[in-house]
Amino acid sequence: MAAPDKSCVCLLSGGLDSTTCLAMAAARGFAVHALSFDYHQRHKIELEAAANVARALGAASHLILPLPLGDIGGSALTGATAVPKDRGEEQMAGAIPVTYVPARNTVFLAFALAYAETLATGDIFIGVNALDYSGYPDCRPEFIAAFEAMANLATKQGVEGAIRTVIHTPLIRMTKAEIVRAGTALGVDYGQTFSCYDPAPGGLACGRCDSCLLRKKGFVQAGLTDPARYFVEE
Amino acid sequence: MAAPDKSCVCLLSGGLDSTTCLAMAAARGFAVHALSFDYHQRHKIELEAAANVARALGAASHLILPLPLGDIGGSALTGATAVPKDRGEEQMAGAIPVTYVPARNTVFLAFALAYAETLATGDIFIGVNALDYSGYPDCRPEFIAAFEAMANLATKQGVEGAIRTVIHTPLIRMTKAEIVRAGTALGVDYGQTFSCYDPAPGGLACGRCDSCLLRKKGFVQAGLTDPARYFVEE
Repeated sequence: MAAPDKSCVCLLSGGLDSTTCLAMAAARGFAVHALSFDYHQRHKIELEAAANVARALGAASHLILPLPLGDIGGSALTGATAVPKDRGEEQMAGAIPVTYVPARNTVFLAFALAYAETLATGDIFIGVNALDYSGYPDCRPEFIAAFEAMANLATKQGVEGAIRTVIHTPLIRMTKAEIVRAGTALGVDYGQTFSCYDPAPGGLACGRCDSCLLRKKGFVQAGLTDPARYFVEE
Repeated sequence: MAAPDKSCVCLLSGGLDSTTCLAMAAARGFAVHALSFDYHQRHKIELEAAANVARALGAASHLILPLPLGDIGGSALTGATAVPKDRGEEQMAGAIPVTYVPARNTVFLAFALAYAETLATGDIFIGVNALDYSGYPDCRPEFIAAFEAMANLATKQGVEGAIRTVIHTPLIRMTKAEIVRAGTALGVDYGQTFSCYDPAPGGLACGRCDSCLLRKKGFVQAGLTDPARYFVEE
């Protein structure tokens, strides 16, 4: 493949979706600048996963920014509230879950926008998915469209008309099974990704939080083996 | 005055505009939760000013969040580029200056949005001003309107229809002289505020950067004395 002639920023958590998104951005010929956040998550295993994934998929760079979302609070992912387990599909499809982090994707995309401007690019990739998991308001297409409109009024490069900001969301209408198949076709090693909200001691995925349950279902429906290591109670 | 019955978040840099904005929010009966950022500015004098101002104006709380904007770069305010001095009004009215920080107000408002949601309020105050200083794209009314629209699609409280996010910009169409007069009428002690982009040794304001020049002009036009302490070359 020829050297990429344009850069993009790709938000990367180290989970299944963002990793697939990065692989797709690279496949489209972008030099991918991966951006992760250390926001006082309950665990840092996903940041190690992000670093491994960025390296394996040939990212041009990988920046991890510390963010004080935990100082603000308001979520089971950054605070003391318990992560829910063993929820059925009906429960997941209901109200916005306690794992919602207030304005998280707004904050993440704001930093991606700042970073993109310093790289003189307007292309930002985010692996949001509105289909399999509709609980989070900031994963919906209407949010992404509104952010993109705002972004083009916010920046010097947008206002001067030099570079238009585009928020790419290649996964937004895909099922988890379709995502897994697409990533596998692009050579993603899902053994390097980490999806669990609340890992068991030793860093194994719990297998019971919403994120683990959706991941497992996706692999089953795709007819593929999930290489994640799940905790098994003795 | 009766106890405030609703809360707001107010972005507070410790400068003239944000301090006046805070005083206005308090005068409207809000319990004001001031929010400042330590973003590797060239100096921290303005954070001390912010703390003093928040206390003096009776803010309900004051949170200072560390933000890694300096890790991203791209601005004279966070990097090694020189802050321009002694610019005339024509120069200031021209291109976006090197003191522009990429997507700064997008990042600041994103955090304000997250913080507001944890406080169960949708009222956010920001002291942006489009009149005296039109160089920054993210100080314009069209940016603020787009951010507000995005915010109401981004959050749990917005989507559930419980609390609408409103970005209040009481200063946006005021001249610097009008701002100084309004703040003075509300009892603001401008001796506590700090506006300089590039202070002289000893923490005195330089008197020559855009921010100092606009401040000085504002006080002159308002017919008031600027209590700031400016560096004087011997």
